[in-house]
Amino acid sequence: MLFNTFSCVLIRRTCAYRVTTYTHYSVKPWKKLRICEALSTQEIGTQVRIQGWVRSVRSQKENLFLHVNDGSSLQSLQVVASAELNCRNLTFGSSVEVSGNIVKSPHKKQAVELKADQIRVIGECDPVDFPFKVKERHALEYIRQFPHLRCRTNAFSSLLRVRSEASSAIHSFFRENHFVQIHTPVISSNDCEGAGEIFQVEPAVQDKTLDEESHHFFSVPAYLTVSGQLHLEVMAGAFPRVYTFGPAFRAETSHSRRHLAEFYMVEAELSFTESLEDLLTVMENLFKFTTECLLSRCAEDMELYHKYVAPGHKERLDLMLKEKFKVITYTEAIDLLSRSSQKFEFKTEWGCDLQTEHEKYLVRHCGSVPLFVINYPYELKPFYARDNEDQPRHTAAAVDLLVPGVGELFGGTLREERLEVLRTRLARAGLEESLQWYLELRRFGSAPHGGFGMGFERYLQCILGVENIRDVVPFPRSPDSCIL
Amino acid sequence: MLFNTFSCVLIRRTCAYRVTTYTHYSVKPWKKLRICEALSTQEIGTQVRIQGWVRSVRSQKENLFLHVNDGSSLQSLQVVASAELNCRNLTFGSSVEVSGNIVKSPHKKQAVELKADQIRVIGECDPVDFPFKVKERHALEYIRQFPHLRCRTNAFSSLLRVRSEASSAIHSFFRENHFVQIHTPVISSNDCEGAGEIFQVEPAVQDKTLDEESHHFFSVPAYLTVSGQLHLEVMAGAFPRVYTFGPAFRAETSHSRRHLAEFYMVEAELSFTESLEDLLTVMENLFKFTTECLLSRCAEDMELYHKYVAPGHKERLDLMLKEKFKVITYTEAIDLLSRSSQKFEFKTEWGCDLQTEHEKYLVRHCGSVPLFVINYPYELKPFYARDNEDQPRHTAAAVDLLVPGVGELFGGTLREERLEVLRTRLARAGLEESLQWYLELRRFGSAPHGGFGMGFERYLQCILGVENIRDVVPFPRSPDSCIL
Repeated sequence: MLFNTFSCVLIRRTCAYRVTTYTHYSVKPWKKLRICEALSTQEIGTQVRIQGWVRSVRSQKENLFLHVNDGSSLQSLQVVASAELNCRNLTFGSSVEVSGNIVKSPHKKQAVELKADQIRVIGECDPVDFPFKVKERHALEYIRQFPHLRCRTNAFSSLLRVRSEASSAIHSFFRENHFVQIHTPVISSNDCEGAGEIFQVEPAVQDKTLDEESHHFFSVPAYLTVSGQLHLEVMAGAFPRVYTFGPAFRAETSHSRRHLAEFYMVEAELSFTESLEDLLTVMENLFKFTTECLLSRCAEDMELYHKYVAPGHKERLDLMLKEKFKVITYTEAIDLLSRSSQKFEFKTEWGCDLQTEHEKYLVRHCGSVPLFVINYPYELKPFYARDNEDQPRHTAAAVDLLVPGVGELFGGTLREERLEVLRTRLARAGLEESLQWYLELRRFGSAPHGGFGMGFERYLQCILGVENIRDVVPFPRSPDSCIL
Repeated sequence: MLFNTFSCVLIRRTCAYRVTTYTHYSVKPWKKLRICEALSTQEIGTQVRIQGWVRSVRSQKENLFLHVNDGSSLQSLQVVASAELNCRNLTFGSSVEVSGNIVKSPHKKQAVELKADQIRVIGECDPVDFPFKVKERHALEYIRQFPHLRCRTNAFSSLLRVRSEASSAIHSFFRENHFVQIHTPVISSNDCEGAGEIFQVEPAVQDKTLDEESHHFFSVPAYLTVSGQLHLEVMAGAFPRVYTFGPAFRAETSHSRRHLAEFYMVEAELSFTESLEDLLTVMENLFKFTTECLLSRCAEDMELYHKYVAPGHKERLDLMLKEKFKVITYTEAIDLLSRSSQKFEFKTEWGCDLQTEHEKYLVRHCGSVPLFVINYPYELKPFYARDNEDQPRHTAAAVDLLVPGVGELFGGTLREERLEVLRTRLARAGLEESLQWYLELRRFGSAPHGGFGMGFERYLQCILGVENIRDVVPFPRSPDSCIL
């Protein structure tokens, strides 16, 4: 009993502690605003406090002008102070806290500015060593060399806001359409899709006393996922609509501007779905919904890219949103290509895969709007693609969405839901034993279903007009490069 | 010119194709409803069509009764039909499409039922081979053996809905509080935290012609992330609030009911933050916001767990939500433990880490509500924890949140933002060279900052009362187990 009383005191003491620590943060009585809030406030005269990083310093005889940015918007807040408040360490890149009054700005570019009473430099920044220079527009290739600092540039902080909003919009789209989110695993014992271009996983420090067999941490070889599709198909046996949005991996050694070793994928699976058309509708709606969200929620950030990184891209994007996406069959695409006067490096015969040069031609030819190509040769598609059972040109119910500038953005198929058809195909590929569980999905209450995947980084490239995929991901991983 | 005309025709033909395929899906004129929509419809008499999986079949002389579930809710829809509509393959587990009229139900348990005109079995299910039996409540350990089928049980489909909603609520919490989401990388060249218990990554098929040095795909050894913290700290140099929510990995060989090799973590980082108290507030709010969302959005699913899996847990959870979380210092915790009459296996001396038995005692002792333990011995915490510079008991500004039943749920620290203090500590740990980039964050506009991480699976265990972490994740990965 005595003991209980003691502990109560303890708890109360810690409550007191909590109140005390609050004061750390409220030494100054001024209302703390984010910079985007300060920029749009109507309350002229209010005393406020802002925190952020200095984007420019200009000292005149009597006045000091700063631009301070805190990442809440592309725009910085102009701070005006008496020249006396200037000091040696108030430089480009330093972090500051500024207190003062919101006043009307005499400039057209902004409605308000902050008249500072107090400026406190929190963290210094040596402008000589800092790789970015004040008011300079650095090329994306240049800032890419500094993955730990590039978020401090306008271009990359805009990218990160757009990426965050895009991620949020994608989740909203699926949520509003009654999809259940599934965290499909990153580590998988299933290697049948990646064939050769997959990463394997083992503990960094391995127990050397074990023999070859018991050597594996998971007792079997384990790999990084190349797609969550098969796991989503499991879930499509209990939910008519599921999706996953997470990392996927390819050990490709190409140094292309469209490939990463680690990238994000949006994948969806729909049950009780018998036509490709259903998938096409979801893909088109996902693209348009997300893009329209971004144009409205990140207007400034999108504009930066459309103005400085890819001039003219806004018009191309508007066209993609306005027009209904086009659809052609693979057979029609081959027909178009072989009738073209353009000379292609790769063959354009029925049965050959479409190459980048073909994709570009088709998109341009169809009006530079996104183009669905459907019903690919059966032999070109993986074991799970549904057999269209057509002749003599045997196709599978598969679709790729090609978009201007980027090429393939989505890929999807109806899945083979018929037990016997699937069993035969798996047996032919020598996969019947390892994919016994996948066959079982067809034994117990199977339903026609289909799904698709979208490369998230390629989507960002497509809407922003960014050439190199390394410029739309926070920490790019590609052959020979894994910085930080 | 001729050619262009031709292609226009192509496009038009494919448009025609699109319209045709629509009809695949609309053979039946009835409005398609999800089961949760059918259950709550007010429109008695409407003709509808539903799709799902049979959860029970009962045939009487004149009537046939089915329960059909489509994963949109825990509750199934009762279907009543003439016994003539029964057939051999209409069994538990099969997938069906039912058309009919919504009628008032004579039963108290449901407002409406579906009077069927037509029942179509889409996918059969052999009830002998199917591992789950009609109306049987299978133990979580039993259903865990069938990772490809367990989503078809009530318990696991409830879990998946809760997990999806929890994920969505967490994103909403951060979004509403102006955090920018960052996709921190899964593959990282940074191994300083995991020390020994990390996974390494290389292509499954390696180029044998290369020597040891150039052997690595990324040219350096690469690992699976154990935490996104250091990468988030990068971003905290441009945004005052960032978070990440993704997979993390530990190559721990323990077969504990609280550990997985692959798990999800929520991590947040706050800039311009000088007190632990700020972090405590965000952690508590995140926990309460998310849990309240779930209790309101997934009431039925939560109830299933609170009724059948962990009876009495609802009251414990309500208490956690009602009470303010308690706070004690590590020193006070040690004091409490050493004065306790309970005998502990592990030491309770100042400087020793808290063990599970200690954590359990502390939480129980403080009223079985979540308990923050703050200011741990400096030597127990990693290099990035901020030095409290106190004496003689030297502590760091670190916090753990302990919760009933689960133990440590959150861990956080203020980060050492002072260049020289950090440099000295890194040098002592032999990390100065490899973490040069991390030091640079303190050279260029550093700001006091701090953050925390929460294990997402442990959170689900905590709110649902689930004993084993393998029962709250779609595809569990642990030593010797990586199924599918």
